[in-house]
Amino acid sequence: MKNIDFMRRAIELSINSVQIGGGPFGCVIVKNNNIIAEGSNEVTLSNDPTAHAEIVTIRKACKSINNFNLEGSEMYTSCEPCPMCLSAIYWSHINIIYYGNTRLDAAKIGFDDNFIYNELGKDLSIRKIPMKQIYKDEAKKAFLDWEQKVDKIEY
Amino acid sequence: MKNIDFMRRAIELSINSVQIGGGPFGCVIVKNNNIIAEGSNEVTLSNDPTAHAEIVTIRKACKSINNFNLEGSEMYTSCEPCPMCLSAIYWSHINIIYYGNTRLDAAKIGFDDNFIYNELGKDLSIRKIPMKQIYKDEAKKAFLDWEQKVDKIEY
Repeated sequence: MKNIDFMRRAIELSINSVQIGGGPFGCVIVKNNNIIAEGSNEVTLSNDPTAHAEIVTIRKACKSINNFNLEGSEMYTSCEPCPMCLSAIYWSHINIIYYGNTRLDAAKIGFDDNFIYNELGKDLSIRKIPMKQIYKDEAKKAFLDWEQKVDKIEY
Repeated sequence: MKNIDFMRRAIELSINSVQIGGGPFGCVIVKNNNIIAEGSNEVTLSNDPTAHAEIVTIRKACKSINNFNLEGSEMYTSCEPCPMCLSAIYWSHINIIYYGNTRLDAAKIGFDDNFIYNELGKDLSIRKIPMKQIYKDEAKKAFLDWEQKVDKIEY
């Protein structure tokens, strides 16, 4: 299969998703030229605000290869990933992202992707959701424990 | 209970997490002065790169109230959320975030939070993970279907 076939499948999933009551987003993850996982937006279907197409698909792909690291994989997604999904892609070590619509296309039909990208770039003190640092000395303990742990699994 | 008690619980979860083989992060979500969900980092335990403490806890909180919208809730997290988790907080409409450690503290013990924040602020063309737009005309169909759908559930 070629790039265009994988993207066609992601788009097909995005179209089907609207029909079954999900958001208009679809995704596939490919490794060694095979689709190892596919998914679509299930936020309202599963009452899970994190269930964007890319997150759903990353979780399935990791389950399918029994590993939290997707290095060597490609993502095909019907829309530029929102910052939650893009960060998840970084954490999962996917190597390349192909996308169709953009965050501005998503904004035009009412989605907050672009707004959240802008919020993340702001200083904490001026974001819409207030962030307050408290109890910081006590919070250090787990980090010290982590540093000292000899058999930790890094990710 | 007071702020300090909720944060103490998040910190306790972060410390326990290191002991059971997870990452050093813990979180609770509070609504009407009650903890409705708590969680810790399960990335390596569950082979899920999205299973950060905050994502795990958001998913549990939504399940507990059977809704994808957590408006009226507070998050207490042992560390400043990474951009994946912060974006998930925006999508879930949590109202305020209390945190202990910072992204720079996390960087010092080897986590990529700060690196990913920096990547998200860059133009797509110079990011570490390449992003290529393909097949954009075909991708528009699901967005048009979404716009025209009369019974859609927005989130």
